[in-house]
Amino acid sequence: MDVAVLGANGGIGRQLLPRLADAGHDAVGVVRSEAQFERMRELGAHPRLGDLEGEFAHALQGADAVVFTAGSGGATGWDKTLMVDLWGARRAVDACEERGIDRFVMISARGAADPDTGYEPLRPYLVAKRCADDALQRSALADTVLRPTTLTDEEGTGRITAAFTPAAGGDDIPRADVAAAVVSCLENDATIGHAIELYGGDTPVEEAVRPEV
Amino acid sequence: MDVAVLGANGGIGRQLLPRLADAGHDAVGVVRSEAQFERMRELGAHPRLGDLEGEFAHALQGADAVVFTAGSGGATGWDKTLMVDLWGARRAVDACEERGIDRFVMISARGAADPDTGYEPLRPYLVAKRCADDALQRSALADTVLRPTTLTDEEGTGRITAAFTPAAGGDDIPRADVAAAVVSCLENDATIGHAIELYGGDTPVEEAVRPEV
Repeated sequence: MDVAVLGANGGIGRQLLPRLADAGHDAVGVVRSEAQFERMRELGAHPRLGDLEGEFAHALQGADAVVFTAGSGGATGWDKTLMVDLWGARRAVDACEERGIDRFVMISARGAADPDTGYEPLRPYLVAKRCADDALQRSALADTVLRPTTLTDEEGTGRITAAFTPAAGGDDIPRADVAAAVVSCLENDATIGHAIELYGGDTPVEEAVRPEV
Repeated sequence: MDVAVLGANGGIGRQLLPRLADAGHDAVGVVRSEAQFERMRELGAHPRLGDLEGEFAHALQGADAVVFTAGSGGATGWDKTLMVDLWGARRAVDACEERGIDRFVMISARGAADPDTGYEPLRPYLVAKRCADDALQRSALADTVLRPTTLTDEEGTGRITAAFTPAAGGDDIPRADVAAAVVSCLENDATIGHAIELYGGDTPVEEAVRPEV
């Protein structure tokens, strides 16, 4: 599968690229600067230039699937939350529809299902993520929304807890295990149409993201 | 018609309330503090407490129509743009659907149709307004979206220019004339389903907002 990753140089993106390559997929890492090209190659991906606040749709050309794991991060203002986390995601969904790219995995955040009950300082972020998720879910694309809880840089365990309806809480999750969940979702069409909360846990990733029938 | 106004104490809201009363409607002014009650009464409206960042749905009880003219304003951060202009609007749409209030007039902003071509420092605002407009337009409500250009506090002229598709530009518009356009839209069901840009101009308001057939 040809997979274009938006946010390829971010914490989850850098964990995702080698996992895609290992699983036999062709990963395109979309980055804002040629200075990041070498790193993309080292991670097993083909680099392409694209800027979520500018032009990026051309970088998706030829992809079978797009993973959105971009985020403005905590160090920038809420204006970037609006422009990248919300509007960038929405433009990515539109770009996929225009180009006939059918499969889309969105990295959202735990709490986006109900921003009003989230941790108050995070609510504007959860609103942006929720509205981005909605844009995907009401599109014609084959969507999976992943909503990880607090992320860590711990080593991946290959095991998580997945909740198909919002859960009361759970353990923090390594970015590596979120990345593993993305690969499992891309490889399992039963995850299409689902929004899945991700926590640290004990269930093998591939099994955890499999909806019960 | 019983009309609940969200943002009743704002620049457009204060122009709107007496115009609703003059036109024979019952206006409810939703405000955040009892200290604003007297002013609402002076403007011819029934005051009710409601906070777009908290509880406000009860204040819409019994309304036939809701006008959303709330905004976090230029003096607060973009986090408030997310919580009030976007999320508050969206929750207002949801509240109307839940309560069977069918008619909704949204005060949006010129440029919300295409945030990417807007004045750059305003783009995050235009993104929030656009996403709020979309939430209304994809709801089951009878919607009119008004997108005024730069607002002034000049006296109203009763005359405007209305554009039913995005226009290249036009004159600034007094808040009073935007308020007059809201009343004309509420009284003309032909405006339902339209997003209308508003500029200063020479056409009587009631005539200007009437779509060509």
